[in-house]
Amino acid sequence: MGQSSPLNFLSLQQMLQAIEQQECSATDIINACFDRLESRESEVGAWQYRLSREAYLQHYRAQQSFYQQSLLKGLPVGIKDIFDTADMPTEMGSVIHKGRQPAEDASCVTHIRQAGGIILGKTVTTEFAFFQPGKTANPRDLQRTPGGSSSGSAAAVADGMVPVALGSQTAASVIRPAAYCGAVGYVGSRGEFSLRGAQPLAQSLDSLGLFARSAADIALLRSLLLLQPQTQLQTQRAPRILLCPGEVIGDTDAAMHHALQQAAQRLAAAGAEVTEISNAGYLHDLVTHHATIMGYEVCRNLAAEALHAQDLSTPLAQLMENGRRIPYHDYIAALTAADQACHTLWPADAAYDVVLTPAAPGAAPVGLAATGAPHMSRPWQAMGLPVINLPGMYDDQGLPLGLQLAGRRHADDQLLQIAAWAEAVLSAD
Amino acid sequence: MGQSSPLNFLSLQQMLQAIEQQECSATDIINACFDRLESRESEVGAWQYRLSREAYLQHYRAQQSFYQQSLLKGLPVGIKDIFDTADMPTEMGSVIHKGRQPAEDASCVTHIRQAGGIILGKTVTTEFAFFQPGKTANPRDLQRTPGGSSSGSAAAVADGMVPVALGSQTAASVIRPAAYCGAVGYVGSRGEFSLRGAQPLAQSLDSLGLFARSAADIALLRSLLLLQPQTQLQTQRAPRILLCPGEVIGDTDAAMHHALQQAAQRLAAAGAEVTEISNAGYLHDLVTHHATIMGYEVCRNLAAEALHAQDLSTPLAQLMENGRRIPYHDYIAALTAADQACHTLWPADAAYDVVLTPAAPGAAPVGLAATGAPHMSRPWQAMGLPVINLPGMYDDQGLPLGLQLAGRRHADDQLLQIAAWAEAVLSAD
Repeated sequence: MGQSSPLNFLSLQQMLQAIEQQECSATDIINACFDRLESRESEVGAWQYRLSREAYLQHYRAQQSFYQQSLLKGLPVGIKDIFDTADMPTEMGSVIHKGRQPAEDASCVTHIRQAGGIILGKTVTTEFAFFQPGKTANPRDLQRTPGGSSSGSAAAVADGMVPVALGSQTAASVIRPAAYCGAVGYVGSRGEFSLRGAQPLAQSLDSLGLFARSAADIALLRSLLLLQPQTQLQTQRAPRILLCPGEVIGDTDAAMHHALQQAAQRLAAAGAEVTEISNAGYLHDLVTHHATIMGYEVCRNLAAEALHAQDLSTPLAQLMENGRRIPYHDYIAALTAADQACHTLWPADAAYDVVLTPAAPGAAPVGLAATGAPHMSRPWQAMGLPVINLPGMYDDQGLPLGLQLAGRRHADDQLLQIAAWAEAVLSAD
Repeated sequence: MGQSSPLNFLSLQQMLQAIEQQECSATDIINACFDRLESRESEVGAWQYRLSREAYLQHYRAQQSFYQQSLLKGLPVGIKDIFDTADMPTEMGSVIHKGRQPAEDASCVTHIRQAGGIILGKTVTTEFAFFQPGKTANPRDLQRTPGGSSSGSAAAVADGMVPVALGSQTAASVIRPAAYCGAVGYVGSRGEFSLRGAQPLAQSLDSLGLFARSAADIALLRSLLLLQPQTQLQTQRAPRILLCPGEVIGDTDAAMHHALQQAAQRLAAAGAEVTEISNAGYLHDLVTHHATIMGYEVCRNLAAEALHAQDLSTPLAQLMENGRRIPYHDYIAALTAADQACHTLWPADAAYDVVLTPAAPGAAPVGLAATGAPHMSRPWQAMGLPVINLPGMYDDQGLPLGLQLAGRRHADDQLLQIAAWAEAVLSAD
């Protein structure tokens, strides 16, 4: 129990434990989250739409016995504003959908509610979960981008407004904001989570994402969303790690290079078997293949919005215009390359359990006009792998330098166990 | 030009050609379709919701110059009632969603409208595109099932009410009704078509489907929905066919067995190289694996509906109840087996272009209380392959015996070319 932390900065599991042990009430935690939110939101800008404290507590009290018996105890959850909600607008960061009110909850929202989570509000997304930023600033340094597209979810969790939030990733939309804001961010193996009611951007790439403060919290949310029995993360034998330096994929800065080497050394010192990747040109190629798949699919999903070109940002309008011209055979070649790469990286007898690689080119860049480069995520996302951003490394100014672990497809449970082990190693002084 | 056929029974391409050559007007064809529909709908029951002839023609005339310059000329299209439509209810065959009015069109509906198709109405689907039948009868014999879940789309096309219709397939929901009703039915390689606004049932299996009267019509619709240039089907060299008898997958009756052998002989006589499959136990296993994937995913997608168990059919409620208990590792094993099977069936050097196999166990069964067995579709659907039902074979009573061709994933264009060739061979006297 990190009771030295304010209540609103505890992890979800710590919050639940504190309630269980009657060290505090759910209402105490809810109020601590609102205290933080109300003092910070005018600067951070994480929320597109949200409940007031009064409305939240009124709802909580009206169903208090349900919440007290529930898994999540009525604690607040943030939902990226591309997931439909029956009681709040879902605008997808676009003026085209201003005030859009869905009739139904997305399935993941239903699962959260059924487990006793309360949707505090909808978090800011970039336009249609692509690149054009919303109003959110990085809570670690308000002059810097929070990353995107799940900007508000990452910022709200990193800033202590909510313990957990939902996001989505098509290119780098969970891992990059998690890295820039210093949150744990997780993208599930593609296809396992229901995306009913999540507005699609590119069907071959879209994945559900989660933000929290620990790998254990991610595991709890994951089991809840999959309607699986809750499992405790096992003590993990020291894992076998494949080190993938940033330059294999694309540009990373010196601070990130240093952080990756430092982390690899500390994990090796704790017992991990670390080997460096070789012959990885096929991974670099996936940066381009990913962009091809995304460009091809986005303009076909946003069919109706294409008629409102004047209401689209220039980058999105250009992506859609270019996407229409991508030859079908280039698209299929990119899909095929991604499928083959997945088999190349993960043969049945792979001598490693996870890949360790930078989550972003460096710390969050200064400026709110763009959300940073996505290339460090593209290869893993093209392959549909589960990935998790591990906070714990920082640059000279104390800004987070996110590292990510990527696992074998459908080996999410193993990935989260290794992440919990690595989290403990990297957070130890 | 089959001008001996009534206008409403022409293929879409024939209709467009007749308009182009001023042999008739679009209005003539629209009226012929409504004549048929109004005389038959009380018996066939293909439509859940539809425009009246007056409303249709009023809409057509109001935008006549747009339609006259468009690809589809204002001709009518049927849309399975699991695709959202902004101007018509979308009820998914469930009393839970009676009167549900979406705010937006599904992306495929937008593409149809932009190409100048007019949505005549929403066609009957089984409950949530699973097994519980709607009101539709088989137009070839009103005492028999039309098959499901895309019951209304198959019946409407087969009965001459519309030239083309959209459907979806998770198990056998396009191929089986196409086979039973005697329509061309096509399921695209999984993942290529945008499914935005299509209500999901099982995300690892859901595929867009199309109904028409020729493979060429399917190719036209496919290019339209993919925003691809329209290509004419090339004259196909005699294809290499892998013959997969029904017993490899599961029960088929004697008439179907005979039809498959007959068709194989006729295609071979026309120049096809036909070889019979061997060592195909892995395909048979996919019947079970498909059911595992579907059971696991359906209950997680229908999260909100699970709270209305009293409003679900018994088969769906049971599927969802059982699905919650499927162990995660069984689900992943099934997904993995399907992925491996796809690579086993389609090595890079496969000595065949398509698989020829029964589309259903036999002709449409008598009775409207069930939609027939889905097992003949499960293996191909588990692998995400493109498939097409070829009409042309009949039993002693003149009922259609559908055969399907399955192609390599993403080789849909080749599949449609071979289907057009086979269609010509099988329809020749």
